[in-house]
Amino acid sequence: MRKISVIGSTGSIGTQTLDIAGRESDRIKVTSLAAGSNVKLMEEQVRRFSPAFVSMGNEDAAKDLRDRIRDTDTTVCAGEDGLLRVASDPECDMVVAGIVGMIGIRPAIAAIESGKTLALANKETLVAAGSIITELARKNGVRILPVDSEHSAIFQSLEGQSRKNVEKIILTASGGTFRGMDRDALSKVTVKDALKNPNWVMGQKVTIDSASLVNKGLEVMEASWLFDVAPEDIEVVIHPQSILHSAVMYSDGAVIGQMGLPDMRMPISYALFYPERMNWNEAKLDLTTLGSMTFEKPDTDVFRGLPLAMRAAVAGGTMPAVFNAANEEAVSMFLKGKAGFLDIYDIISMAMDSHRVIAEPDLDDIFEAEREARECASSWSGK
Amino acid sequence: MRKISVIGSTGSIGTQTLDIAGRESDRIKVTSLAAGSNVKLMEEQVRRFSPAFVSMGNEDAAKDLRDRIRDTDTTVCAGEDGLLRVASDPECDMVVAGIVGMIGIRPAIAAIESGKTLALANKETLVAAGSIITELARKNGVRILPVDSEHSAIFQSLEGQSRKNVEKIILTASGGTFRGMDRDALSKVTVKDALKNPNWVMGQKVTIDSASLVNKGLEVMEASWLFDVAPEDIEVVIHPQSILHSAVMYSDGAVIGQMGLPDMRMPISYALFYPERMNWNEAKLDLTTLGSMTFEKPDTDVFRGLPLAMRAAVAGGTMPAVFNAANEEAVSMFLKGKAGFLDIYDIISMAMDSHRVIAEPDLDDIFEAEREARECASSWSGK
Repeated sequence: MRKISVIGSTGSIGTQTLDIAGRESDRIKVTSLAAGSNVKLMEEQVRRFSPAFVSMGNEDAAKDLRDRIRDTDTTVCAGEDGLLRVASDPECDMVVAGIVGMIGIRPAIAAIESGKTLALANKETLVAAGSIITELARKNGVRILPVDSEHSAIFQSLEGQSRKNVEKIILTASGGTFRGMDRDALSKVTVKDALKNPNWVMGQKVTIDSASLVNKGLEVMEASWLFDVAPEDIEVVIHPQSILHSAVMYSDGAVIGQMGLPDMRMPISYALFYPERMNWNEAKLDLTTLGSMTFEKPDTDVFRGLPLAMRAAVAGGTMPAVFNAANEEAVSMFLKGKAGFLDIYDIISMAMDSHRVIAEPDLDDIFEAEREARECASSWSGK
Repeated sequence: MRKISVIGSTGSIGTQTLDIAGRESDRIKVTSLAAGSNVKLMEEQVRRFSPAFVSMGNEDAAKDLRDRIRDTDTTVCAGEDGLLRVASDPECDMVVAGIVGMIGIRPAIAAIESGKTLALANKETLVAAGSIITELARKNGVRILPVDSEHSAIFQSLEGQSRKNVEKIILTASGGTFRGMDRDALSKVTVKDALKNPNWVMGQKVTIDSASLVNKGLEVMEASWLFDVAPEDIEVVIHPQSILHSAVMYSDGAVIGQMGLPDMRMPISYALFYPERMNWNEAKLDLTTLGSMTFEKPDTDVFRGLPLAMRAAVAGGTMPAVFNAANEEAVSMFLKGKAGFLDIYDIISMAMDSHRVIAEPDLDDIFEAEREARECASSWSGK
């Protein structure tokens, strides 16, 4: 029986994790949950999974939830204290970190320090604090299992293979909504245009990041930390069908890759049941129905998210946190109509230009770099 | 240092094995070789690799070779005795079985009984004598490493994975020269038409078998024995580019597959260096240059090689040997202009119809079934 805590339980990763936990209730027990402000959904989750305790983002939401679930045995706590309590829940053996943003870093650290296996969907944990997190995991003998389709595919393609024979990682990308567009066309796209992703059902922010290839840049950084591979040895390949979720090329030229229908529940379940697999009774990949998979090089002149990410990854230290924070601000400005799509790149670039890298940062340095980057990015007002 | 004996050293698998051994002479030592009648090439191989002894198919060839290599320290023997001596060479730890035909079965047994790792390219060993061979390998604790691209791909896609999670094997096929043709068109094809394979450089026999899908049927039988999977759980998918060499679908819907450029030296080197990999310095797969991979269902109404093979596999016992022997005769008749392309299927079918299966055959039963099938097939004279 796997016992899990889910951080970000009302979000996209959290709800899909609980979907699987509900299907496989004889193999998974949910011990605690943490969410932000969605009291209504948290109430449903408490009634469904009866966790010993849950945490809400603030005291108001916690109070509301307490009123609603007075008839249950679940305790409700709140804020960062509550979040950290869920992340180090003595009853669980795995923490699913589905929370979005820099707020995910401290609970990830708490989970690792408590010796929990970390099923990690939160990007910021590795992008901004990769050196701290991987070192801590090593020291505590804790395994980090990736929870997204690309990194899960790479993880699966490395299983049973000798790491020293790895030549490069092939990280696939759908290419996003604007694949094939030139700079001129991109300068005119609207928020509405941007919020369609052909293959994956995702939140707004990540849909924009997918279109700008910033998301793929963040994934390069994550893969670099997760698999101890230099960013230069990670090749991004555009694969519009999102069937080959990623692959690894070995020294003999063999490429081992993992394929499947695009469904986030696959990588989530892989982490939950690792090293076993669940029995999935819904639709599975049929190559002959699919018909074809296509591949192309990313247009890095137009979609500068990738080269900017590479620049941040190679600079290292605090720079990836700056890249990520500046992007968040830029996307927020784009969504509010305060910046055009291509401005996202200029805003990131500006924030990176004005940042002085701290090579071996501690957590405070990272949060400070993040804050400065947001300030710098939000000061942008066109050229 | 891996020490290898190569059976069939002057054939396609043998020469490519020695190509790799020559490139990696600090990791591979060639201890003995066996070939049929190609004395000239064997002389070159002796001078290049200085094996302690070699064997030729018959005494005349052996005598000729002895004359040519009088100045070397290599001993020459001949016939089946020589072949078995090479297969059980006390100096080697791996036997590469690249010999073609039923003649490959006894040396495979000799290798297994001597405790050698068997790098197996000879199809007949598993197709005709799968139950005997796999049982013997199990008893002797000997590993059989597949030496062809499809089975090597499956093997690689199973590494590090739990066997009980395997749902099915996806065996890819180029579809051969006649892919897409209907029965009418196929009834008119010539030998010359048949002897073109778009992706793989192969011998005549196997090129025809590839076009008829009989080859893929034989591979289904081999895969079934190698990976202990029922023939019904092996799906053949036509993939004209021959890049995805085969794959495995797991219970959670994940499909792990191995890709690469079509080059037999890849699976050969994988067996030679297993569990490590060689450093290959020539062209490697570039997905973006490739552009696309396509997949379709095989047309089993027209290309009856597959359903006939499935029938033989399910019947089991001596039937696969009959299927294989009848096909060999039929292809030989086709190559001599004595039968049309579609007649190959009728000849196989006729031989299978007239065979009474022995369910748990010994080696003699298998050779007898083979002999009868050849006799029956060669009696064919159209309808």
